[in-house]
Amino acid sequence: MTAFDDLMAFERETQALASIAGRLGWDQETVMPRGATAQRGEEFAAIENVLHARRTNPQVGDWLAAISDADLDAVGQANLRHIRRSYARNTKVPAKLASALAKATSLSQGVWAEARANDDFARFAPTFEEVVALKREEAAALSQGAEQGDLYDALLQDYEPGGSAADLAQMFGALRPRLVELRDKILGADQPAGVTGTFDEAAQMALAHEVASAFGYDFELGRIDKAVHPFSSGSGQDVRITTRTSATDPFNCLYSTIHEVGHAAYEQRIDDAHLLTPLGAGVSMGVHESQSRIYENQLGRSRAFTGWLFGRMRDRFGDFGIANEDAFFAAVNRVTPGYIRTESDEVQYNLHVLLRFDLERQIIAGDLDVADLPEAWNARFEADFGVRVDKVSNGCLQDVHWPVGLFGYFPTYSLGNVYAGCLHQALREAVPDLDTGLAKGDTSAATTWLGDHLQTFGGLREPKDTIRHACGFEPSEAPLLDYLEAKFGAIYGF
Amino acid sequence: MTAFDDLMAFERETQALASIAGRLGWDQETVMPRGATAQRGEEFAAIENVLHARRTNPQVGDWLAAISDADLDAVGQANLRHIRRSYARNTKVPAKLASALAKATSLSQGVWAEARANDDFARFAPTFEEVVALKREEAAALSQGAEQGDLYDALLQDYEPGGSAADLAQMFGALRPRLVELRDKILGADQPAGVTGTFDEAAQMALAHEVASAFGYDFELGRIDKAVHPFSSGSGQDVRITTRTSATDPFNCLYSTIHEVGHAAYEQRIDDAHLLTPLGAGVSMGVHESQSRIYENQLGRSRAFTGWLFGRMRDRFGDFGIANEDAFFAAVNRVTPGYIRTESDEVQYNLHVLLRFDLERQIIAGDLDVADLPEAWNARFEADFGVRVDKVSNGCLQDVHWPVGLFGYFPTYSLGNVYAGCLHQALREAVPDLDTGLAKGDTSAATTWLGDHLQTFGGLREPKDTIRHACGFEPSEAPLLDYLEAKFGAIYGF
Repeated sequence: MTAFDDLMAFERETQALASIAGRLGWDQETVMPRGATAQRGEEFAAIENVLHARRTNPQVGDWLAAISDADLDAVGQANLRHIRRSYARNTKVPAKLASALAKATSLSQGVWAEARANDDFARFAPTFEEVVALKREEAAALSQGAEQGDLYDALLQDYEPGGSAADLAQMFGALRPRLVELRDKILGADQPAGVTGTFDEAAQMALAHEVASAFGYDFELGRIDKAVHPFSSGSGQDVRITTRTSATDPFNCLYSTIHEVGHAAYEQRIDDAHLLTPLGAGVSMGVHESQSRIYENQLGRSRAFTGWLFGRMRDRFGDFGIANEDAFFAAVNRVTPGYIRTESDEVQYNLHVLLRFDLERQIIAGDLDVADLPEAWNARFEADFGVRVDKVSNGCLQDVHWPVGLFGYFPTYSLGNVYAGCLHQALREAVPDLDTGLAKGDTSAATTWLGDHLQTFGGLREPKDTIRHACGFEPSEAPLLDYLEAKFGAIYGF
Repeated sequence: MTAFDDLMAFERETQALASIAGRLGWDQETVMPRGATAQRGEEFAAIENVLHARRTNPQVGDWLAAISDADLDAVGQANLRHIRRSYARNTKVPAKLASALAKATSLSQGVWAEARANDDFARFAPTFEEVVALKREEAAALSQGAEQGDLYDALLQDYEPGGSAADLAQMFGALRPRLVELRDKILGADQPAGVTGTFDEAAQMALAHEVASAFGYDFELGRIDKAVHPFSSGSGQDVRITTRTSATDPFNCLYSTIHEVGHAAYEQRIDDAHLLTPLGAGVSMGVHESQSRIYENQLGRSRAFTGWLFGRMRDRFGDFGIANEDAFFAAVNRVTPGYIRTESDEVQYNLHVLLRFDLERQIIAGDLDVADLPEAWNARFEADFGVRVDKVSNGCLQDVHWPVGLFGYFPTYSLGNVYAGCLHQALREAVPDLDTGLAKGDTSAATTWLGDHLQTFGGLREPKDTIRHACGFEPSEAPLLDYLEAKFGAIYGF
């Protein structure tokens, strides 16, 4: 056994334990008895302690010091890169700070939920100030020894390794004006009709299973359950998703399912050789989101696929107020004004994200005080969406991310959309008759292409390289913008 | 923090991790995707490694050496007793032997399953000889430093701490002749009719939920799912049970459920103060089985409760060939000849167990060679059951226990029945009008008494003391025998 073999054996066991911790989270959201909360809290803390001890174990540092990249093949080098990054990240943050952060964010989540329910930002502010102070302290610790000393970039690495705020700002800077213009045109045009009536929730779940299969979700390596929030959980051989139903909005269930199938398919299709290694999971949040979004939007909300879906929905639900496939395509893609990111459409979604990206950079840089956040939010919202936020629960208190300390996470949503735009362009070039299959509910040409050109590699390449390799060109925001303008121009008639 | 506080904090975290490992087992038997087997195997191995390292951590030995019983209250002393016993047990077995046993028993289970399917004992014998040799080696390691040097007693401690083969042999020696005589009388009498027809399996599950509630199962702290084998899993706030259905035998589902509710109720009702401590779980297999069996048999198969159940089954299933409550009581309690322990009735069940107890003591003592096991089994079976075993899958290959190295486990089944007999006698004395409630499907007088007199204490007292404390008299086999003779005499008319 070489040092590398020892390290990989240790890492494999750590990955297996992390997988168990992930399953515990799935269990809590789906099947756990209501009265088990306190005990489950201790169980989570116990396994997190085990994981933290392994991830900061000095033996890992010794192994890393003893291994030379030159002795390894590309897979070995990629594994080593992930382990080095993780070990450096985890050993840079003092245990005391990690513990203070865990406590503060746990407390903050409860205070935030109450403050949001009561539209009371003042109630949340002191707690949130504490979270921000600790996150800035963490960012300072993480940025030690980094090539760039930027606090925000240090946090961004947790979600998008190799990403930088400067690159994102440039990309998003090009995205924003064309999106604002597009939103403006759309909201000035005639609105297509939405669906009407109620939709049996068991039938929705049955259709969700059918649609998941249509998108290649492998039920031998996963399952679908209902939960309050849709999510995908796990890697490798056990990748479970959840969805939810609304009696009046069948698209909530269906498109949440397709979105999560995108995440899950990525995890299910990674090369078996990477199982329980650092390469055996999606490489970044941005790349992950590119899979969920291309499944959901460029494929799932396409004219071709919605044509098939219209028939399946008519079979299951009868008449729901939509006359034909074209009207259904428009109904699926309706753009309506609204304050809430998670209820947003393809066009406005990125405007929600860009707003958060700019504000959170200011917060972490120390240029925006917590007390000034609601007004900064509302001013920016009015500039981009043309309306004034009516209450703070529709403004800066709407998302759980900041209260639990997730700074640097938001931009990966839009980065994922940009990457989905690039992948979609490459896919259309590689499979010119894609729509023929989609119109019959057959996504296999698309999902096979994504599997072969991206998903199978897992964490082998860095995030941006993963997209570049799949597309064969340098990723940019242009394909997404071109796609959105063409699609919504067609629907809204401009 | 004293050494005791440190030890208890460490133990609490170990218990939380053990709880996670147990939940992983539940997941595998109920909801895990089929294709996840290999990954799950690595997950199990990883968490078992963590648990083994904690349970043999020399720091525990240091803490134990630094703590004086005299400084602790009764609860502290009981915790210490459990931790001392567990630490001594785990450190006595060399790691190499533990690993060899894990491998041998894992292999053996597969070989056994094939041998049983082909009625081929010769195929199983070499593998089984290896398991027996390793278990004798383990017993020798465990019996070092014990007051009694008996190999079998050393193994028995894993399931019934404080128990001894000599005590059990005396008890079972008194049990056996009266059971043989009772079986003989019953099988010589006229057989009551059984149920006929088929029973909707969804309706069976609905009734199982109703019956579980009737026995006080707390759905806030648990759930019921279907699985291949019925079991109860977990302690404290999250105690889940499984059951199964057979279209032609509704009693399989219903009485498996009641049995598992007995196990689960014990775990759910332990004093919250013991949560995630060594006292927070059932104290032994024998005491655990006393709960499952008194729920299932003395309560669930009583004339009073079956009277209520008959009405509920008629409501759900219509006519199933049983005319009235008395006939239903007889149908539920039918005694029929058979080779298989798990399909057995209250009367013959203990004869199955006593046979195994006697044979496994001889095996571990080195007095019975593996090659001679089938003949020894068949001879004893004929003596106790009056018929010759027709094939080895109906004989010594029927149970998984020995193939996976569970020697010392079987007697706890009969000990549980004996304890259930004692508890039932004490309960009837404490609650003279018990049948009034049972006849209305109300078990609360019984389950409250068991909760207050036994379940709440968890592992506070040693197993036999737990029963003695609840009953107020010295446990013996007499109450069980008196109960069985009276009940089956009434049903079979002698």
